[in-house]
Amino acid sequence: MKRVKIMDNIILKENEKIEDLQCKGLKIIQNKKGFCFGMDAVLLANYCDLKKNSKIADLGTGTGIIPILLCGKKNVSQVIGLEIQEEVAEMAVRSVKMNNLDNKINILNIDLNDAENYLNINSFDAVVTNPPYKLPNSGIINPSDKKAISRHEIKCTLEDIIRTSSRLLKHHGRLFMIHRPQRLADILCLLRQYKLEPKHIRLVHPKVAEKPNMVLIKAVKAANRELKFDKPLYVYNNDGSYTEEIYRIYN
Amino acid sequence: MKRVKIMDNIILKENEKIEDLQCKGLKIIQNKKGFCFGMDAVLLANYCDLKKNSKIADLGTGTGIIPILLCGKKNVSQVIGLEIQEEVAEMAVRSVKMNNLDNKINILNIDLNDAENYLNINSFDAVVTNPPYKLPNSGIINPSDKKAISRHEIKCTLEDIIRTSSRLLKHHGRLFMIHRPQRLADILCLLRQYKLEPKHIRLVHPKVAEKPNMVLIKAVKAANRELKFDKPLYVYNNDGSYTEEIYRIYN
Repeated sequence: MKRVKIMDNIILKENEKIEDLQCKGLKIIQNKKGFCFGMDAVLLANYCDLKKNSKIADLGTGTGIIPILLCGKKNVSQVIGLEIQEEVAEMAVRSVKMNNLDNKINILNIDLNDAENYLNINSFDAVVTNPPYKLPNSGIINPSDKKAISRHEIKCTLEDIIRTSSRLLKHHGRLFMIHRPQRLADILCLLRQYKLEPKHIRLVHPKVAEKPNMVLIKAVKAANRELKFDKPLYVYNNDGSYTEEIYRIYN
Repeated sequence: MKRVKIMDNIILKENEKIEDLQCKGLKIIQNKKGFCFGMDAVLLANYCDLKKNSKIADLGTGTGIIPILLCGKKNVSQVIGLEIQEEVAEMAVRSVKMNNLDNKINILNIDLNDAENYLNINSFDAVVTNPPYKLPNSGIINPSDKKAISRHEIKCTLEDIIRTSSRLLKHHGRLFMIHRPQRLADILCLLRQYKLEPKHIRLVHPKVAEKPNMVLIKAVKAANRELKFDKPLYVYNNDGSYTEEIYRIYN
């Protein structure tokens, strides 16, 4: 395998590239043929409304994009990213080192269903998650296994993620999730089932007057019932350019 | 009490007025000081996607606005409107007669929790409902009792409505509801609990870029899990005029 040394201790493997995150000089390693982070990760990191010095878990961290963005955008003290795929987790570790964020971000290459064996329950201020969107038996499964695991509920279900979030969060700890609107009934029912009260919903529409294609959700552990809908977020103007808000989110 | 005879058998009581529904000559009697139908009833009647010759129940029919609009707009064979308030139900009966719709619409002055004593379970093609939006203990209770009953969950809860809908509907029968977005988690969880699968959600926004203030929901009894979000509905243009779609709905 061809390897290219790019800086002290950081190795770029074949088919890997470095992407500039356009935020405080942060960068990330991605596999050109693997699952690359998308707008959903950026929107989710931006949506997180965190208290100062929060301790955060990212369930299914992938390439580590959300922990890295949170360190760039928010006042966080510690982010633990859980990733089941060894190769992807290892790439995340290199990205964390490349950004000199080893002191804040820890990547654990574990199954999130085993989280309690590694992490204290009731100890996190916030959980963030950009889970696989598709049901295990829905759609064409991507032949590249890594992509399929990132997209389909193969290694963990939505229920696994919500149950684990509830276990890890402190009383009144916050869960932030981005998902597809068509899973909203599943999400809200599971949140309630695991004592995570949905507090805010923000729908993301490609354009004005179009159906939403993403949903941002904030839930709070053991909170009162009080759901608020936020203003919709539009991604594109009618001429195909990004909206002002998207420009602001991307800096 | 001053009474004004307006046509054969139809009496208009004090404080009552007749409103033209701008649809096939249909009219409705309303109490000037009572709860008057609003845009939500019109949007709900329009949202109902009914099979031909459907047999329908309207839970909490109030002045009978939804049965009357359905007879104007849709191909329905029979609509039964349930209304717990005697005075309001009696007004609905007069409106039905005034429109010569006695052959299609029956108003029952009963508690919807007793529906099974009067109606066959598993027998309706569709249920429609524009229930009280507010929790019994929320907000300022309207001093006029009739208005309070129409607005707050005093005489029936959301759960009563969803449970009764599920009982009355045939296998694969359809429930159409309009409610407030802040109750969406309650609604979706209760629908699932009573085997009514949420299939379509349409959010209604006062204007583009504003938070939604109403939600239209279609659920199907004993259906597969497959939720779709419809395009948003905007009520006003930025200049304060109604949007084209609202004009179309109102004819």
